[in-house]
Formats: sequence, C-alpha cells, structure tokens
Amino acid sequence: MAAWGERLAGVRGVLLDISGVLYDSGEGGGKVIAGSVEAVARLKRSGLKVRFCTNESQKSRRLLVGELRHLGFDVSESEVTAPPPATCRILKERGLRPHLLVHDDVRSEFDEIDTSNPNCVVIADAGEGFSYQNMNEAFQVLMGLENPVLMSLGMGRYYKVTSGLMLDVGGYTKALEYACGIQAEVVGKPSPEFFKSALWEMGVEARQVY
Amino acid sequence: MAAWGERLAGVRGVLLDISGVLYDSGEGGGKVIAGSVEAVARLKRSGLKVRFCTNESQKSRRLLVGELRHLGFDVSESEVTAPPPATCRILKERGLRPHLLVHDDVRSEFDEIDTSNPNCVVIADAGEGFSYQNMNEAFQVLMGLENPVLMSLGMGRYYKVTSGLMLDVGGYTKALEYACGIQAEVVGKPSPEFFKSALWEMGVEARQVY
Repeated sequence: MAAWGERLAGVRGVLLDISGVLYDSGEGGGKVIAGSVEAVARLKRSGLKVRFCTNESQKSRRLLVGELRHLGFDVSESEVTAPPPATCRILKERGLRPHLLVHDDVRSEFDEIDTSNPNCVVIADAGEGFSYQNMNEAFQVLMGLENPVLMSLGMGRYYKVTSGLMLDVGGYTKALEYACGIQAEVVGKPSPEFFKSALWEMGVEARQVY
Repeated sequence: MAAWGERLAGVRGVLLDISGVLYDSGEGGGKVIAGSVEAVARLKRSGLKVRFCTNESQKSRRLLVGELRHLGFDVSESEVTAPPPATCRILKERGLRPHLLVHDDVRSEFDEIDTSNPNCVVIADAGEGFSYQNMNEAFQVLMGLENPVLMSLGMGRYYKVTSGLMLDVGGYTKALEYACGIQAEVVGKPSPEFFKSALWEMGVEARQVY
C-alpha cells in the first residue's frame, strides 16, 4: 500500500459521506463519530476542497446542516451534494411532475416543482411515511401511467441510528419495482452522474479527488 | 385446441382459485364475479372433486369461507388449501418460532405456534399492518439472526378489490430480501409443494386434476 503522502499527490479535494461517517443520526440530533469534527476542521485548514456527498433523503439540506453545525461541524448548505436538488434538476429537464413519496422534512426541497397531475413517482427515505396507504397510493399512480417512471433517491438498504438499524429507501423502491414490474432510476450514490455533479460543484476533476 | 369432452377425459378433480376468480374482495365482503356461484354448484353436482386453492393470507380460512358463503358459494373450510396451515406444518417440522408480520385477521391460524424468542420471520399480506414500524421490527429480527429465515405466504404483486388495485405481500417480501441480503422461502402458489398438498388433500393425482 502506497504511503499517504504518495497517495495524496495531486489531490485537490476530498468528498466526505455524512451519515455513518461524520455522525450516526437519531433522536435528539444524533451522535458524533469520535474524531470526525476535528478531522473535517483539519481537512479544511489544509487547503483541500472539502465537499459533503450524501444520500440523505429524509431531511432537507437546511435541516441536515443545522444538525451538523449543532454537533460542531464546520459545514454550510452550499457544501452539500444531496439527491433532492439533483432530482429537481432532472425533473425540470424532462418535464416530469412527481407524486412525492417523501418525508415531510425534505418536502421543501421540491417547493419549486410542479406536482399537479403527476406523470412519475419520486421515492425517498420517508421513514414513518412508508405507511401501507402511502405506498399503495404511489403504486396506484405508477399503475395508472402508460410509461411509469419511478425515481429513487438512493438505494440504501438500511442505516444506523443511535437506537439501532433502520430500513432505508432501497427496500421500498424494490417493493414498487416488483409490484409494478418496472425498474427505478436511482439518483444518488453510487450513480456516476451523482459523483460527477459533486465534482463539478467543487470545480475539480475525478483524478484530483480522494 | 381439444374439445372440452376430450380435455376432461380422466379428470377427477378441479382446483379453483378464489380471489379474482370467484369474487373480488373489498369493503362489505366483496363482489361475486358473474356466473361463479352457479359454476361452483355445477362442478359439485357433476361429481368432480372440487378444492379451493388460494394464496389468500390476509384472512383466516374461517373468515374467508364466511365471506364466500355469505355471497352464496357452497364451500367449507375443509375444502380450502391456503398458505397459513401449510406454513404452520413447516414451522413445526423445522422447529421454527416465527415473528409474525401478518394481518390480525389471519393471526388465529397461528394460535398453536410458539412465537417466543423468534428464530424466523413469517410475512403475509398484512394490509395496513405494513407500517414502517412493523416492517422495521421484522427487519431488525432478521438482522439479529445468525441464519435469517424469511417465509413469505405467496409472492403476489397486487390484487384487485372493488375500489381498485392493492399492493400484495410480494413487494414487501422483496423489500426485506433487499434490506437483509437474503432470499425468502415462498409458501403458496406457484410452489409445486403447495399444489401437491392440495392434491393430497383431494386424494387425486396431478394428471387427474384440471
């Protein structure tokens, strides 16, 4: 394994995950993972470009950054790449009007999107919002479309909170895929487009990022 | 295509589906599909053995038969092959103690099953019982097991009720499979074992059944 100095030669920026890397989310704002506040501070002091790239789809960036700042992290909304804004860009580009199966805490990210007379479904980590009724409503919207489009904000299996493991959006996307006989389009990691948009926002190239 | 007389030569029994064939379930006990009450009566008068083979996993056989009789069908509990009793046999044979993610209306079918200290999960069409909390509980049980066993009563994509299409158990099973990285064992149609048990209960062989 190459020494750190060698591996970091030419590196101009660092992409950091958030949940499970900087902190474990949970009741009362979650819990810092030991050493991560200082690690972020040191990276920033080093002059490297730092960007936070997350599949968080249960909270708006405003809420997420609020939590992180409360825990001591030096982070601003403009430094966060997350699936909701990327999804909004795609929806606008393709003239899609989504039925939103999302958590109330992320709904504000879609404020500028036309959701009347839906011609697609956007699914994100809805948490308790994944009721049978809400899932069935999304299912019925998809079954009523001639060309059903399902857009999934990430495909996480589960995530860790302070109280244990929690089902993430991926399983629920699989449920709708199976019931409707369709395949979802995933917006978020590990999609190359998603990483590319993070790099573009940083102003660096892939080979310059760790 | 062979004439009916020729196709039925040697046939001693008939397996009938229930939901979507005899009736569409829904509020107030559902709605008969035109001609089906008389068709069942004629089959029985003809001297053929008639058995009802269903993937219904939201209601006990007692409730299901009550609904059917109310709609005018000549059917008794002992004529119905359904996933819950087949599941109970497997659980007993293998010493499995299930965590039940099922509808309250089918819970009585598992009355004689030990559900303490679960070492597997049984999932059936839980309807409104498919809350995030209940799904997460089943997920956590599976993740806590060294050898997670998930038994699914059927893999239906959706079913029709008088008010429209409804998500069936299959999607929810897919959700748990994806989240846990496992594959479910399916009890119900189209499993050959399930059909075989229906034939055994009728006392006929596969070639004698239509």
